[in-house]
Amino acid sequence: MNPLAAGRIRHTVVFTLSHPPGSAEEAAFLAAAARLAEIPGVDAFEILRETSPKNEYGFGISMEFADPAAYAAYNEHPDHVRFVQERWLPEVAAFLEVDYEPLA
Amino acid sequence: MNPLAAGRIRHTVVFTLSHPPGSAEEAAFLAAAARLAEIPGVDAFEILRETSPKNEYGFGISMEFADPAAYAAYNEHPDHVRFVQERWLPEVAAFLEVDYEPLA
Repeated sequence: MNPLAAGRIRHTVVFTLSHPPGSAEEAAFLAAAARLAEIPGVDAFEILRETSPKNEYGFGISMEFADPAAYAAYNEHPDHVRFVQERWLPEVAAFLEVDYEPLA
Repeated sequence: MNPLAAGRIRHTVVFTLSHPPGSAEEAAFLAAAARLAEIPGVDAFEILRETSPKNEYGFGISMEFADPAAYAAYNEHPDHVRFVQERWLPEVAAFLEVDYEPLA
């Protein structure tokens, strides 16, 4: 992993779906989430499996933005807003957002 | 950020210290944590500021391991065990571990 450069933001979210593991509904959700990578300003997009036995979450998404304006534009983008309304809110059982910036 | 390659593990932890923000004690803890990067097998080590208003955490650490054996060796390494006992347990007020592996 390349270190997070000054000014950049790494936006991550860990989550659990309401769908059974390995289900077609799970695969369809992950495929829809993968298309968030196409929204302008999204860099270093990853969908990941969360594997720590110390929390309840099953998946994670990580992406980076060049600056707060790019992050805000993503949040407000119609494709993101539609994904949150149509897929995230009805299909995600639990989640936590964690955002990182360089320490200095 | 380079995508997480097959077989690799990204180990992350978000945390809040019991020390006042900007204090010498905070800086000393972060300096001690930075030395975890020297433990064999630790790749892509980062100490980060956690900046989401949607959680309580103030800092994060991220590192990668080539495989589960490298992760286990880190956990059991005397320098890690000593850090947990002497710094982490007394100085960390709250934390959550989140580990990622590639989805496929």
